[in-house]
Amino acid sequence: MPQPERRYVITFGCPDRTGIVARISSFLAEHGGWIVEAAYHTDPDTNWFFTRQEVRADSLPFDADELRARFAEVVEELGGQANWRVTDTGERRRVVILVSKEAHCLYDLLGRVTSRELDVDVSAVVGNHADLAGITRAHGIPFHHVPFPADDPAAKQAAFARVRELVAEHQPHAVVLAKFMQILPPELCQEWAGRALNIHHSFLPSFVGARPYHQARRRGVKLVGATCHYVTADLDAGPIVEQDVIRVDHADSVADMVRKGRDIEKVVLARGLRWHLEDRVLVHGNQTVIF
Amino acid sequence: MPQPERRYVITFGCPDRTGIVARISSFLAEHGGWIVEAAYHTDPDTNWFFTRQEVRADSLPFDADELRARFAEVVEELGGQANWRVTDTGERRRVVILVSKEAHCLYDLLGRVTSRELDVDVSAVVGNHADLAGITRAHGIPFHHVPFPADDPAAKQAAFARVRELVAEHQPHAVVLAKFMQILPPELCQEWAGRALNIHHSFLPSFVGARPYHQARRRGVKLVGATCHYVTADLDAGPIVEQDVIRVDHADSVADMVRKGRDIEKVVLARGLRWHLEDRVLVHGNQTVIF
Amino acid sequence: MPQPERRYVITFGCPDRTGIVARISSFLAEHGGWIVEAAYHTDPDTNWFFTRQEVRADSLPFDADELRARFAEVVEELGGQANWRVTDTGERRRVVILVSKEAHCLYDLLGRVTSRELDVDVSAVVGNHADLAGITRAHGIPFHHVPFPADDPAAKQAAFARVRELVAEHQPHAVVLAKFMQILPPELCQEWAGRALNIHHSFLPSFVGARPYHQARRRGVKLVGATCHYVTADLDAGPIVEQDVIRVDHADSVADMVRKGRDIEKVVLARGLRWHLEDRVLVHGNQTVIF
Amino acid sequence: MPQPERRYVITFGCPDRTGIVARISSFLAEHGGWIVEAAYHTDPDTNWFFTRQEVRADSLPFDADELRARFAEVVEELGGQANWRVTDTGERRRVVILVSKEAHCLYDLLGRVTSRELDVDVSAVVGNHADLAGITRAHGIPFHHVPFPADDPAAKQAAFARVRELVAEHQPHAVVLAKFMQILPPELCQEWAGRALNIHHSFLPSFVGARPYHQARRRGVKLVGATCHYVTADLDAGPIVEQDVIRVDHADSVADMVRKGRDIEKVVLARGLRWHLEDRVLVHGNQTVIF
Repeated sequence: MPQPERRYVITFGCPDRTGIVARISSFLAEHGGWIVEAAYHTDPDTNWFFTRQEVRADSLPFDADELRARFAEVVEELGGQANWRVTDTGERRRVVILVSKEAHCLYDLLGRVTSRELDVDVSAVVGNHADLAGITRAHGIPFHHVPFPADDPAAKQAAFARVRELVAEHQPHAVVLAKFMQILPPELCQEWAGRALNIHHSFLPSFVGARPYHQARRRGVKLVGATCHYVTADLDAGPIVEQDVIRVDHADSVADMVRKGRDIEKVVLARGLRWHLEDRVLVHGNQTVIF
Repeated sequence: MPQPERRYVITFGCPDRTGIVARISSFLAEHGGWIVEAAYHTDPDTNWFFTRQEVRADSLPFDADELRARFAEVVEELGGQANWRVTDTGERRRVVILVSKEAHCLYDLLGRVTSRELDVDVSAVVGNHADLAGITRAHGIPFHHVPFPADDPAAKQAAFARVRELVAEHQPHAVVLAKFMQILPPELCQEWAGRALNIHHSFLPSFVGARPYHQARRRGVKLVGATCHYVTADLDAGPIVEQDVIRVDHADSVADMVRKGRDIEKVVLARGLRWHLEDRVLVHGNQTVIF
Repeated sequence: MPQPERRYVITFGCPDRTGIVARISSFLAEHGGWIVEAAYHTDPDTNWFFTRQEVRADSLPFDADELRARFAEVVEELGGQANWRVTDTGERRRVVILVSKEAHCLYDLLGRVTSRELDVDVSAVVGNHADLAGITRAHGIPFHHVPFPADDPAAKQAAFARVRELVAEHQPHAVVLAKFMQILPPELCQEWAGRALNIHHSFLPSFVGARPYHQARRRGVKLVGATCHYVTADLDAGPIVEQDVIRVDHADSVADMVRKGRDIEKVVLARGLRWHLEDRVLVHGNQTVIF
Repeated sequence: MPQPERRYVITFGCPDRTGIVARISSFLAEHGGWIVEAAYHTDPDTNWFFTRQEVRADSLPFDADELRARFAEVVEELGGQANWRVTDTGERRRVVILVSKEAHCLYDLLGRVTSRELDVDVSAVVGNHADLAGITRAHGIPFHHVPFPADDPAAKQAAFARVRELVAEHQPHAVVLAKFMQILPPELCQEWAGRALNIHHSFLPSFVGARPYHQARRRGVKLVGATCHYVTADLDAGPIVEQDVIRVDHADSVADMVRKGRDIEKVVLARGLRWHLEDRVLVHGNQTVIF
């Protein structure tokens, strides 16, 4: 697979008004910036403008840091949000994956990483069970087993502290909860804010919480789904990045729903992670703009 | 379109045990019954057996009433449910449609009826507004305008009584709430039990109640849907017959969601109604078996 | 439904290079133009740049003609294609619909027009059979019956001449072949180039030509589809605007496939027509860019 | 995951007539057979009847061989096809997978096998390249590298002979061409008839042959798909088991289509393989009945 050319990605939001596109594109044109992809959106409820610009790195006479410094003036002029970013696709993305016993999302991600479809480094996999140590290490990736004793709050707190430490070591661009099955404490939600992606096995806001497929079977729904969302302190209520569904019927037991649902969980998580790592997801309150 | 041959449709449920299929099929075979379509299901949670059998009418030496009388013995022998049925596709189905101002579901149904895709009689359309009188009458179908004063409980009760009367005149096989936008009183839910189909503009159980697209937009979901369900006294909680979804994104305003959602509402309602009228829907508690 | 504010829509293509976005957006910003929606695309194979800009009419100090005149200079400067356009959403779109006997697409479009979901004028409906005269006239729309004798080439040619004339009277923005079931002669394809939309009842390029559902059944496919495309002299080979599919299985007869397929035909045609009328479709060789 | 109870699966076809269901179900009932799942279908074009019956093994007083011997009489009486089968879910399914360089389908299958979602033995993986040896062996599965020299027909023939031998050793229930990228010679198609499943990366019959995503991009389609079919001597024309599609647009390069298409290829192949191994696929001419 040919390496795509190096690019700088600008993501940015500010109050909407006339001339924003002109200001940004003129700034880039001045320096010879070749825009490869550009997307715009204005939220009509809040009148907030969003953009993502992808520029060929070799078209600009300076590096990402310099671009950042110069673009900061444009941001200030336009009254931009604090969370604007300039990222460099030449900087390799690092990911830490948290797992439990279920293998399907991890296999799926490892497959994508191996084939370089998802061209990132998996820095580490952390599991509260050891079931997935083998497949992880077969890929040359460190696996850390951090047990979570069910009925011991202090031990659980210590376990979370250990996970926090293991993640912090790698400063990953994304912490992926690939069926981690543990509810993060608020301080971890805070620390990983905007970087922690969870896959929930229902079409949220349906069936929040435990055993969503059992809930779905009981309600007699005709489709089951999955939701990839940013983790926040409010359980299963973070900004939604991606969702999808699959058809089920009366003949499907809970086990069948689980099986069919997994195929959706895998792709929904993979898409959400890809968009996150490509800086395509802009969070706006509890909603996301996906460019 | 060629008329399909006349058939008797048997729907039936009983506790599962060995020999049920043999008993039913032998009963039919004894009398020369030619089974055109047969479906079986056992619910593992309740161990309840369901079947639907479609038999060529001309293969049996007696009529539907006689078949009903004879099959009653089989039902008794197998401990069948009270709600088993033998219906005759030669008996034309009658439908009464309740509407408000929104045209899309009514247009969709009238189009299907006109082309005989849905080969039924629309006995009447009842509207709490008169907006859809013209299109209804252009099809030679009586339209009854029954206003529902918003703030007058007594007048509202009288209006429901009038609707009840209008429906009762036709003894319809289905009462279709095609965006009726009024919550039925418990006694109507009771009277029309198992015959009243509603289309709700969300993927239930998400966004129960009013303005689901506004709720969906606020939550930032990536798909919106629609649900066709039997009306029960418990709002938006009746047995689900059919559901589907369509993709939306951050660029979709509530108006866009409404527009996209309508395309789903139409097909979900039309599918649900077809299955209901073909006796393909067996209700089991709050779930449905769709054969 | 509130009237959306009036807008000018610019669609435009030119060879890709640095500074195009800046040039266009600066031109607009200079005159106070408020961009409501903007989309960009570069085709990597041909290095051709495309854009669509939607600007609030009241933000510019001149009308559409003046905008067109001034933007022509930008187009020339950038080496733009001949087929760039500035359109005014304040100018009502006119549509002529060609039909045969099948009602479903016409009903669907009339329903959308009536509810003003599709806020256009249907100037006329032309049918080679008279079956759909009633429903058309019930909407106050003129219906013209132009018979097409099957085995008489001269009469057929005369019929096409009559259709051409009827269409020409209205100078419509779109000629919609809503199951017209007649192959247009090359000169009509030419005259209506870029304005004639057909709905084909298969997922092209599968099952070109006659009786696609029969072909699909014979091949044993598990999905059937529909394709909305611009009409060209090359049968069923014009640029594709929209496609979709629906699941079928072994139990579906050809009649079932036809029925299920119709639900797809309707939405695919309606989406394609909407995008066309909103100037969202840019044709590039035999492909389309949909903004 | 709890082991599902052992079952015998009967699949069978014969000319349709009255009394078939009664004959089969009475035969089973006589011996106390508890039918867990039953499906029927009659093809209206050929008047051929199909059934699949799943019976609890412990409900019958004899084993699969005896059931086969006794059921043979029923088959003969009903004029059944030669290819009827009685299989025993207690007999573990064996699968041999043929691969090339592309990892996604193999990863997907190994993930399903590891989690026992697909509870089968992968007896061997054979690759014409060695790229996938590592991941295969990490699962304790033998990997055989059989190079296919591109321009040497004799060497190629020898390679196929070697593959044939490796497969024959395991007498697998399925030979899965998981992106094998080699066209099987007719004698292998013959030898593996009804057991060899291929995944083709297009929605057949669109884009037969090489580089379907390039063909799809050129034609400007709005969906790409994948097809799982039985391998026959006629390239990409064997009976279709499963298909699915995913949406693409003008912004998707061929590489993007390849990436998106892979997610469809994986699930389509996995579903097809599951159904094949559960004896749910009955081939009828060039079509399949999926129970």
